[in-house]
Amino acid sequence: MGQIVKSVRSVTAFAPASVGNAAVGFDVLGFAFPVIGDTATVSLIPGPAGVEITEISGISPEALARIPKDPQLNTAGVALLKMIEARQLRDGFRISIKKGIELGSGMGGSAASSVAAVVAANALLERPFSQAELLDFAVAGESVASGSRHADNVAPCLMGGLTAALSAHPIDVVKIPVPAQILCVLVHPPIVVETKVARAILKPDVMLSAMVRQSACLAGFISGCFLSDLGLIRRSMMDLIVEPQRSQLIPGFDAAKAAALENGALGFSISGAGPSVFAWVDSAAVGEKVRASVVKAFCDAGMKESEIDSWIAPVGGAGAKVVGETRS
Amino acid sequence: MGQIVKSVRSVTAFAPASVGNAAVGFDVLGFAFPVIGDTATVSLIPGPAGVEITEISGISPEALARIPKDPQLNTAGVALLKMIEARQLRDGFRISIKKGIELGSGMGGSAASSVAAVVAANALLERPFSQAELLDFAVAGESVASGSRHADNVAPCLMGGLTAALSAHPIDVVKIPVPAQILCVLVHPPIVVETKVARAILKPDVMLSAMVRQSACLAGFISGCFLSDLGLIRRSMMDLIVEPQRSQLIPGFDAAKAAALENGALGFSISGAGPSVFAWVDSAAVGEKVRASVVKAFCDAGMKESEIDSWIAPVGGAGAKVVGETRS
Repeated sequence: MGQIVKSVRSVTAFAPASVGNAAVGFDVLGFAFPVIGDTATVSLIPGPAGVEITEISGISPEALARIPKDPQLNTAGVALLKMIEARQLRDGFRISIKKGIELGSGMGGSAASSVAAVVAANALLERPFSQAELLDFAVAGESVASGSRHADNVAPCLMGGLTAALSAHPIDVVKIPVPAQILCVLVHPPIVVETKVARAILKPDVMLSAMVRQSACLAGFISGCFLSDLGLIRRSMMDLIVEPQRSQLIPGFDAAKAAALENGALGFSISGAGPSVFAWVDSAAVGEKVRASVVKAFCDAGMKESEIDSWIAPVGGAGAKVVGETRS
Repeated sequence: MGQIVKSVRSVTAFAPASVGNAAVGFDVLGFAFPVIGDTATVSLIPGPAGVEITEISGISPEALARIPKDPQLNTAGVALLKMIEARQLRDGFRISIKKGIELGSGMGGSAASSVAAVVAANALLERPFSQAELLDFAVAGESVASGSRHADNVAPCLMGGLTAALSAHPIDVVKIPVPAQILCVLVHPPIVVETKVARAILKPDVMLSAMVRQSACLAGFISGCFLSDLGLIRRSMMDLIVEPQRSQLIPGFDAAKAAALENGALGFSISGAGPSVFAWVDSAAVGEKVRASVVKAFCDAGMKESEIDSWIAPVGGAGAKVVGETRS
């Protein structure tokens, strides 16, 4: 069945970066990081149904060359093709993407492009899809880049705040409250870690005893968030299983972590598959100290300060949203 | 330093049964089951420091013969010896125990004896220990029976309700709210499963992918408890890792589980190391149907109905408490 088109022709949506795993919930938890993100502008083009990617911009030409423009291989393209398929739309989407998130940074760039596209496209439809349906399309899109179906970046990117992705098929997500004072320090060192590589190095098995300790951390962390108990969050926000394996890919990681914790961070770990790292802090002042100490640790590991990006933002921020419309 | 004795000579405390693991949090979660439990009566005996176990009663002579009366091997004895050691008390404790929980039933009997003893003994001291200290003593006691240090039974037994044991050393426990309407159906089939045996059959490793699915369940379950979201609890309350291994030790388990879920249980699994099984339900009417269906499944597996014990109780119940004092 075809959709009736509104007078709006072109919609632009912003989708934030996100920190997958959140240290303590590998492939389950994630939170939005709203001060950076990707932007997608989508138009509805009268038949035939299909997706055309007209432009991708915002990052270096070398990085851009690595993003496929074939819609069947592009995260945003696949998400919109799923949307067309779900309602057998008769028209097609034309999309342009402005990346604000570097490729292979571990900040959920694939998810952000996918989510920005579905949020913009959805605003063009007379009968919009539900949030759960949008999640499903965006997860399908993001899986093209990550190699597996996970909602730990897509869910916070779309919904904002901290989320637990309980199941990717069917999609099942719960939002977890975050104490209002919590800020996230996010630092992106100038190295590239591909998600597929970071996933491939993980041992396929975990000791049962390690799983129990990690479960205890997860239980403590989620309880700490619901109870606004910063001490509990501090005692629980750790990754005993994946971080020790992946941190080898990030020069200076151990020193950066030690410095962040010494300077008052509640927790510190790898953002998604890395190489970006993040800390939770309970004030802007602590955040600035932690940011400086982490940047210094990466400089000590041989990186140039001018090539290290860093940001501080509240964790309980907004998710993806429409930021502009053009009518014609 | 010695303690000044109050005029109270003898105190009796009741400690409830508890359901370790609570399906979804192996070795971490547990909840109190307040309608059955063990009772300990403790007197403070002027020097020398030490523990004397005068009587253990309440269960069959064959089972009683398997409980050591040597305080260094007895869960309650070890807990009280730890208490004496912690403050270098100059006097000794004399203790008698009335078991209301069968040995090897998976209902936290070792924890209950240990907790009842420390709660009763604590009431004899002019300067009582904190709850965290009592937890520590009781965990030390319970570990004599279970072979390892875990607070997943001791914590709910002492504190009541649902708890997550984040760390056993140092002790770190958080209480998780349970929706008020939740009841637990607990069924004890007439077979014995020793905790040490149930632990020994577990594979030492877990697939990382299985850990992720189990983590998602744990995150959903704890969120569901904080949000009072019964649908979320129903979708999350499952054990993908330990239950499939241990359920082999319980004839009729699969049929009992299927029957419980068909009759409306939110979740169903093994209580602790088994053989007892439990279900969470959201009303007394569902509870009665679930209880009858589980009992029938065990009968179909060849057990005698008269030998199957079953109870229904609220999950958010009280923990251990003093129930009597004798002065002389």
